[in-house]
Amino acid sequence: MSVSRTVELEGHIIDSGVMGRCMGIVMDMDGWFDVEEFDVGTRKHEESYARMRVSAEEEETLHEILHQLNQTGATLEDPIDAGIEPAPADRVVPAGFYSTTNHPTEIRYEGKWIEVERIEMDCAVVVDPEGGDHDGPRAYTKVLNAIEKGDLVVTGNTGIRVHPPERPRDAGGAFGFMQGGVSSERPATTQIENVANAIAETKDRGGNVMVVAGPAVIHSGARNDLARLVGEGYVDAISAGNGFAVHDLERDLYGTSLGMDVETLEHPRKGHKHHIYTISEIIRSGGISEAVAEGKIDSGIMYECVENDVPFVLAGSIRDDGPLPDTITDSIAAQNAIREQAHDADLVLMLATLLHSVAVGNCLPSTTRVVCVDINPATVTQLQDRGSAQTVGMVTDIGTFVPLLADALLDGSE
Amino acid sequence: MSVSRTVELEGHIIDSGVMGRCMGIVMDMDGWFDVEEFDVGTRKHEESYARMRVSAEEEETLHEILHQLNQTGATLEDPIDAGIEPAPADRVVPAGFYSTTNHPTEIRYEGKWIEVERIEMDCAVVVDPEGGDHDGPRAYTKVLNAIEKGDLVVTGNTGIRVHPPERPRDAGGAFGFMQGGVSSERPATTQIENVANAIAETKDRGGNVMVVAGPAVIHSGARNDLARLVGEGYVDAISAGNGFAVHDLERDLYGTSLGMDVETLEHPRKGHKHHIYTISEIIRSGGISEAVAEGKIDSGIMYECVENDVPFVLAGSIRDDGPLPDTITDSIAAQNAIREQAHDADLVLMLATLLHSVAVGNCLPSTTRVVCVDINPATVTQLQDRGSAQTVGMVTDIGTFVPLLADALLDGSE
Amino acid sequence: MSVSRTVELEGHIIDSGVMGRCMGIVMDMDGWFDVEEFDVGTRKHEESYARMRVSAEEEETLHEILHQLNQTGATLEDPIDAGIEPAPADRVVPAGFYSTTNHPTEIRYEGKWIEVERIEMDCAVVVDPEGGDHDGPRAYTKVLNAIEKGDLVVTGNTGIRVHPPERPRDAGGAFGFMQGGVSSERPATTQIENVANAIAETKDRGGNVMVVAGPAVIHSGARNDLARLVGEGYVDAISAGNGFAVHDLERDLYGTSLGMDVETLEHPRKGHKHHIYTISEIIRSGGISEAVAEGKIDSGIMYECVENDVPFVLAGSIRDDGPLPDTITDSIAAQNAIREQAHDADLVLMLATLLHSVAVGNCLPSTTRVVCVDINPATVTQLQDRGSAQTVGMVTDIGTFVPLLADALLDGSE
Amino acid sequence: MSVSRTVELEGHIIDSGVMGRCMGIVMDMDGWFDVEEFDVGTRKHEESYARMRVSAEEEETLHEILHQLNQTGATLEDPIDAGIEPAPADRVVPAGFYSTTNHPTEIRYEGKWIEVERIEMDCAVVVDPEGGDHDGPRAYTKVLNAIEKGDLVVTGNTGIRVHPPERPRDAGGAFGFMQGGVSSERPATTQIENVANAIAETKDRGGNVMVVAGPAVIHSGARNDLARLVGEGYVDAISAGNGFAVHDLERDLYGTSLGMDVETLEHPRKGHKHHIYTISEIIRSGGISEAVAEGKIDSGIMYECVENDVPFVLAGSIRDDGPLPDTITDSIAAQNAIREQAHDADLVLMLATLLHSVAVGNCLPSTTRVVCVDINPATVTQLQDRGSAQTVGMVTDIGTFVPLLADALLDGSE
Repeated sequence: MSVSRTVELEGHIIDSGVMGRCMGIVMDMDGWFDVEEFDVGTRKHEESYARMRVSAEEEETLHEILHQLNQTGATLEDPIDAGIEPAPADRVVPAGFYSTTNHPTEIRYEGKWIEVERIEMDCAVVVDPEGGDHDGPRAYTKVLNAIEKGDLVVTGNTGIRVHPPERPRDAGGAFGFMQGGVSSERPATTQIENVANAIAETKDRGGNVMVVAGPAVIHSGARNDLARLVGEGYVDAISAGNGFAVHDLERDLYGTSLGMDVETLEHPRKGHKHHIYTISEIIRSGGISEAVAEGKIDSGIMYECVENDVPFVLAGSIRDDGPLPDTITDSIAAQNAIREQAHDADLVLMLATLLHSVAVGNCLPSTTRVVCVDINPATVTQLQDRGSAQTVGMVTDIGTFVPLLADALLDGSE
Repeated sequence: MSVSRTVELEGHIIDSGVMGRCMGIVMDMDGWFDVEEFDVGTRKHEESYARMRVSAEEEETLHEILHQLNQTGATLEDPIDAGIEPAPADRVVPAGFYSTTNHPTEIRYEGKWIEVERIEMDCAVVVDPEGGDHDGPRAYTKVLNAIEKGDLVVTGNTGIRVHPPERPRDAGGAFGFMQGGVSSERPATTQIENVANAIAETKDRGGNVMVVAGPAVIHSGARNDLARLVGEGYVDAISAGNGFAVHDLERDLYGTSLGMDVETLEHPRKGHKHHIYTISEIIRSGGISEAVAEGKIDSGIMYECVENDVPFVLAGSIRDDGPLPDTITDSIAAQNAIREQAHDADLVLMLATLLHSVAVGNCLPSTTRVVCVDINPATVTQLQDRGSAQTVGMVTDIGTFVPLLADALLDGSE
Repeated sequence: MSVSRTVELEGHIIDSGVMGRCMGIVMDMDGWFDVEEFDVGTRKHEESYARMRVSAEEEETLHEILHQLNQTGATLEDPIDAGIEPAPADRVVPAGFYSTTNHPTEIRYEGKWIEVERIEMDCAVVVDPEGGDHDGPRAYTKVLNAIEKGDLVVTGNTGIRVHPPERPRDAGGAFGFMQGGVSSERPATTQIENVANAIAETKDRGGNVMVVAGPAVIHSGARNDLARLVGEGYVDAISAGNGFAVHDLERDLYGTSLGMDVETLEHPRKGHKHHIYTISEIIRSGGISEAVAEGKIDSGIMYECVENDVPFVLAGSIRDDGPLPDTITDSIAAQNAIREQAHDADLVLMLATLLHSVAVGNCLPSTTRVVCVDINPATVTQLQDRGSAQTVGMVTDIGTFVPLLADALLDGSE
Repeated sequence: MSVSRTVELEGHIIDSGVMGRCMGIVMDMDGWFDVEEFDVGTRKHEESYARMRVSAEEEETLHEILHQLNQTGATLEDPIDAGIEPAPADRVVPAGFYSTTNHPTEIRYEGKWIEVERIEMDCAVVVDPEGGDHDGPRAYTKVLNAIEKGDLVVTGNTGIRVHPPERPRDAGGAFGFMQGGVSSERPATTQIENVANAIAETKDRGGNVMVVAGPAVIHSGARNDLARLVGEGYVDAISAGNGFAVHDLERDLYGTSLGMDVETLEHPRKGHKHHIYTISEIIRSGGISEAVAEGKIDSGIMYECVENDVPFVLAGSIRDDGPLPDTITDSIAAQNAIREQAHDADLVLMLATLLHSVAVGNCLPSTTRVVCVDINPATVTQLQDRGSAQTVGMVTDIGTFVPLLADALLDGSE
C-alpha cells in the first residue's frame, strides 16, 4: 500500500541542523520515517550517523521526498546510477534535467561516484564518459545557454549525492570567526582584524584573493587604500563594473571628488562633466592599459592592476555611461569571465556592490570563503543567505573598512 | 583688468530658485555681478525677467561661469554660434565636446537657435547641416559609443541654451500633485488615486504609458493586477529584466510561489527548481511569444503583452539565469532598445527596480512625467534626484500599490 | 571524575529544532551526552520523546549546562525544588536570582510544579506560599523595581521548567499562516486577508485585540480606517505615545495635514503650529475625554476610544511636546499600564512603531499572537526575533495596510 | 480694496535662498508684492538688502503672510510691540500664543527689541518686565508644561523678529566643511578628521562638547575609545538612556559581549542574563557613582564620567529594564535635565541614537553646532532636517568612527 526506501546521514548532522531538516522534509511532504539506527557524536568534532526508512503513500511522493533529502545531504543506502540523456539541441536541456545546488556534488555513473567539477548553482550536469585527459569519466556543470546538442545531461534525482556545509562549532583557524553567524556580535575593529588575518593566511598558503567592488569604494574615499593592497600583492583578481573603473580613473585624471555622491546622490557642480570626459579620454587611448602605457593614468586601483598584472573583469550594465573599451558589454560573456575568476578564488571580498556580488556569488561553490561588507544590512543579508557556511557579513562603512584593513595588513598593526 | 558679459534670465526664476542658483554660481566661482534689470512676477503664474552683467578676473573663469549659468537656464544676451568639430574616429569625440543635461536644449547654428532632438543626459550633440527630410539643419544627441568618424560634434560652452524645469507652484492638472515635493505628505490612498488620474489623463489624450518593473512586482503578489492593466490597454510598453519575465512565467507554468522570497530572500522548498525549469521550457519553445502561441503560457503579464501587442524590452544582466531567448544580453543593444521606449513615453511608472529605473531614467528628458514607487526610500530618493520637475516618488508596498491602482483605474472606485 | 544528570525532552522537539539546540548547548559548553532513549514522532502532529544523560568534568559546568537546557525546554528527570531567598531590601533581589524568559514556566515548590503567573521576560519570580484566594502556593513575576523587602525570590537554576514554543508545521486555524516564517512569501493582499481572519476569529471567541500604533498611522492616511475599526468594536485597547494622539487630534481640530511628514520629515508651512496648538487646546480642556465631552473633538481614533470606552495608554517620552494631560510621563508607571494591557491581550497588532512595540513586546508571554507591520524591514526583524512562535511580520505600507484591513473586516470583501 | 505692509530683508538673502522663500510665501498664500528696493551683494561675503511692499485682499490673509515672512527672516519696516497676555492657569497658555522656532528671535517690548533667551522650538515666550538682576525687561522660552498662571506670554505675530541661519558659502574655520550639505561627498576618513578638528577647536576656546550616545556605541566596540575621550577631557556632558549605561557597565562587570546584538539582534547564550544581573548589582550599590566608589566598577564610559566629574543624564524610556537608580524615569524631568545640558553645549556629537538625538535636538537653538553619526541614512536625514545651518551628518559605522576619532584627537594622527 505504501512505498519506502532507506537513507543515511553522516557527519555533524545534529548541530548543523541537517537531521532536523531531513525529518522535517519527510513530514512536510506527507511522508513518514523510522529511525533504524542513530549513532550520535556526543562531543564536539565527533560525527554522527543516522539511518532512516522513509515511506510515502505513492511512488511519486516518495520520489520527491528522496530528491529533497538528497539535496539536504542524505544519501540512499542502495543507490542506482544517475539518469543521463543527450541534449536535443543547442541550449536545450532534456526534460527533467537535474538543476544543481552550490554544494559539493557527486553523481553515480557506471556504479561509481564521481565528483561534479566546477560546481555552482542552477546548472545542468554534463557527463563526459571519456573524460579527456582523465583516466575515466568526468562530470561538470554547464549553464543552460552553454549546452550543446548531444551533451549527456544528468536527469532525475537518483544517483546524485549532495554535501551541504556542516557548520561544525568553533572550527578554529583564521576563518573560525565566521562560523555560526557570530561575527556580527563582535566589535567592528576586531572583525576587521579577523578579515585581515583570513587574507594573510590565504596568501601565506598560496591562495587566491578576489575582490568584488562597487563604485562606493571610490566615493567613500577607500580608493587609495585598495590600490595599496593591489600594489602590495594582496589582491589576485578584481571583478567590478564600468562605473567603478570610471570613478577610479576620474580621480586620477581630474584629481577631483566624484561625479555623483554615494549618499545624497547629488551631482556636485563639475563632477558630472569629469566623469564623461574620463570615459572619452580612455576611449581615445583605446583602453585602460593603453592609457597607463601612455602615462595618461598613473595612480589608483586600475593603474595598480595594470602595473602588477592583476587581472580585472569589468562587466557592463544597462546603466553604464560610455562604456570603457575594457567593459564586457555582453552579459553572457561577462558571466563567463566572472565564472573563471570565481572558480580560481579561495577567498572573495565583496565590497559595497549588490549586483556584482550576486553575479559572483552565483558562480561560487558553497565551499569558497566569502567576506561581504556593505553599509546596507539588506545587502549583507541577501548575500549571506546562499547556503554557504563560509560566508561572513559585516555591516559597516566601506570608507573606514578598507583603510583599517590596509593598515592591519600593511602596517602590521591596527 | 576684468572681463564681463551680460546674461538674461526669464520665467519662474524666483520661486523655482533659478535666480538664486545663478547668483550663487557666480559668487562660488569667484566672479561678481550687477543686476541691470530685475522685473519680478509678483503673483503666481507671472514670470520674471532679470538681466545681469557677470564679471571675472580672467577670461577662462568667466568662460566657466557662463557655462554653468547656461546649464542653469541663463542665456547670453549677445550669443555667438556653438563650436563644432568633426569626430576624429568612431566612438571618439573631439576634445572639449559638450556633454548634455537632460533638460530641453537649443544650440545656435548659423545664427539660429535649433532644438536638440532626443535630449538625454551625458550625450554629445551632433549637428546635421542638411537635416535629412527637414527643411534645415538639425541637432540631436548621440551616446559616446554611437559616435561615427566625421560626426559634427558640438564643443565648448557658447551658443548653447538649456531650459531647466521651472517648478511653478500648484501647476494644476492631474500631475499637479507632483509639484514641489509635496506628494509624500499626502496619505497613501490619496496618492494612488492621483497616480490613477495621471494615467487616465495621459491615455485620454492619446499618450504613451511605459512601465518599468522589477521582480518584486511578481513576488509581492501584484502580478495579476499588472496583467489586468496591460490587458485593458493602460500600458503601452514594459521595460524589465530577465528575472521579472521568468518569475511571471513561472507563476503561469507552475502555479506556485516564486523561487526566492523578496523580503526574507529564503528559498522555499521547490521554487528554485521551478525557476530554472521555466527558463528551460521557454528556451525549448524558442521564446515567449512562441510559448504563448503554443498555448504553453496562458496568463500573466508577459502573456498579456504578447496577446495585446504591447512591446517589451527584457534587458540582460550578469546575475541572470538562463537567460530567456527574449533577453537582450548586450548592454549597449539593450540600452538602445530602452532608449526607444523612453523617448516615446509620456508617463513612466517605475515599479520596484533600481537598476532598470536608473537605466530608463538615464534616457529620459526632464520633461517626461515619472512616478517612482518603491518600499525602499533610498531607491525613491535616488530616482527623484535627477533634476526633473516631473518626477514624483512614493514610498509604499508595490504589493498593495498595484492592486489599489488597478481598482482605481478599472473599477472606477477606491 | 565527571558528573552527570539525566534530562528529558518531549513534544515537537525534532522539527522545532529543540533537540538539535539542546545537543548543541551541551557540546558548546564542553559537556557530552548519551542518548538513552529516543522515540521519534514520525508523522506530522506526532510528538517525540528523548532522554539524555548529560555529563561534564566539573559540577559547575554541569550546572550551567543544565540551566541552559532548562531554558530551552529540557527538564531534569529527577527534579528538586527551586531555591528561594527573601529580598534583602526594596528593589534589591537576592544574588543569583532567576531571570525569566517569556516562555511558559513552572517552578517546583514543596515537591509540586506550579505555573508562574503573568510570565514575561527579564523578571524575578516571587513565590507566595499562601497564594491569597488560591488554595495553595502561587508564583508570579515581578520586575526588578517592584521587588519589596522580604519577597520570596526564586534563585539558582534547579526546579525550573521552561516551555519554549514548538512551532509544529501547518498548525491550522487562522494563525496557521504565521507558522514557519512563511508569511513573508505570501503576497501582500493575501497576508492582509489572513490578518483580518485572525482578528475576526479572536473576536468571535471573545478574545481581546490590542493595537500598538505609531504616529505614521496618522501621517500615512490610515487614521480614519483605524478609527472605523475602533468604532466597530474590533479594537479592545490602544497603546501609543503622546505624538500619536496629538496628530490624531490635530486632524480633528485643524482638518489639515500633519505637522511633520513621515517620509521626508519636512515641516510643511502650517502643520507645525497646529501641532502645538492642538496640545494647548487639550490642556485647556483638561484632557482628551474632557475635550470630547465639550464637543471640541468629534472624530478620529481617540474620539472613538472615548465614545466606545476603549481604554488607551499614552506613554510619555523625552521627545514629546506638551505633553497631553493624558500622557503618563513616568516610564515605570507607563510600563505598568502597558503591562496590564499586554497581559489581557490575545492578539496584538503592532503598527509602525519600534519604541512602543518593543515596550509592549517586553511584557508579552511568547504565547500571545502578535502581528507586526512596518515599512522598515529592520523594525519587523527586531520585533519578530523574540523567541515567539506566534509573531508574524509584514513589511508593508501602513497607509495601505490599515485601509485594506478595514475593508476586509468591515465590508466583508477585499 | 486691498491691504499692504512693507517688509525688509537683510543679509545673505540671495544665496541662502531666503529671498526666494519669502517671495514664494507671498505668492503661495495668495498675496502679491512689489520690490521697492533691491541692493544685491554681488560678491561672496557681501550682504544684500531688499524692501518689498506685500499686499493681500484681506487683513487676515496679510496677517498670516506677515507671520510666515517673520518666521523666515523678514522684518516689518514699521514694527509695533509684540502682544502679551497673562496665562490664565498653570500649564495653560493664552489663545493665539506665539510658538517659537529654534532660530535666534527678538521680540519688541515697549518699543525696544529684546533677545529671547534660551531659544528652542515649540515653546511659548514669557516676558519678565523687571528682568531680575537685569537692568531691563527680559524674554525667555518656556515649554507648555512649565507655564505658570500669570506668566506674561507673547501672543500673535507682530513685534517678533526671527533670524534663520544664512548659510554663507565656504564660511571657513573647522566647521566650514559642514556648510552647504557637502560633507557627505567627502571620504569617510577626511570627514572624521574634520570632526576631530571641530572638537579640538571647540575645546581650545573653552567650549563645551556634549555627547549623545546610543547602546550601539557599546555593541559595536567603540566603548573603550569613547571612555578614552571622556578620560582625556574631550567630553563635557553625556546624554544617553538606561540601556547605554547598562551595556557599558555590563562590559565592566562581566567582561563579555552584550546581551543583544546590534545588527542581528540575536540573543547570545549568556549575554541576556548578564544584562539584568548588571542592573541588579548597580541597584544593590545604590547607583553608578556608589558602585564606582565601592570599586565594583573600574572601567568604561560611566566610570570615566564619575572619575572625571563629567555630568551625565540617563533618561528613562518605556522599554528599559530595571532601570538603574541613576535613570530619570519622569520624561518631563528628564527633558529638563537634557535641556540644561543642551543649552550649555557648543558642539553636540550625536552617536547612533534616534530617540535621544531628537530629544536633545528639540532643545537646541539652530546656532549650536551638531555632528550626527549613524549607519542608518534615515536617522541622519531626520536629524539634519531641523533648519540648522550648523548640523552635519555622517552615514558611517559608529564602531569605526569613534576609534578613528579618538586616534585623531589623542594620537595626533589618523
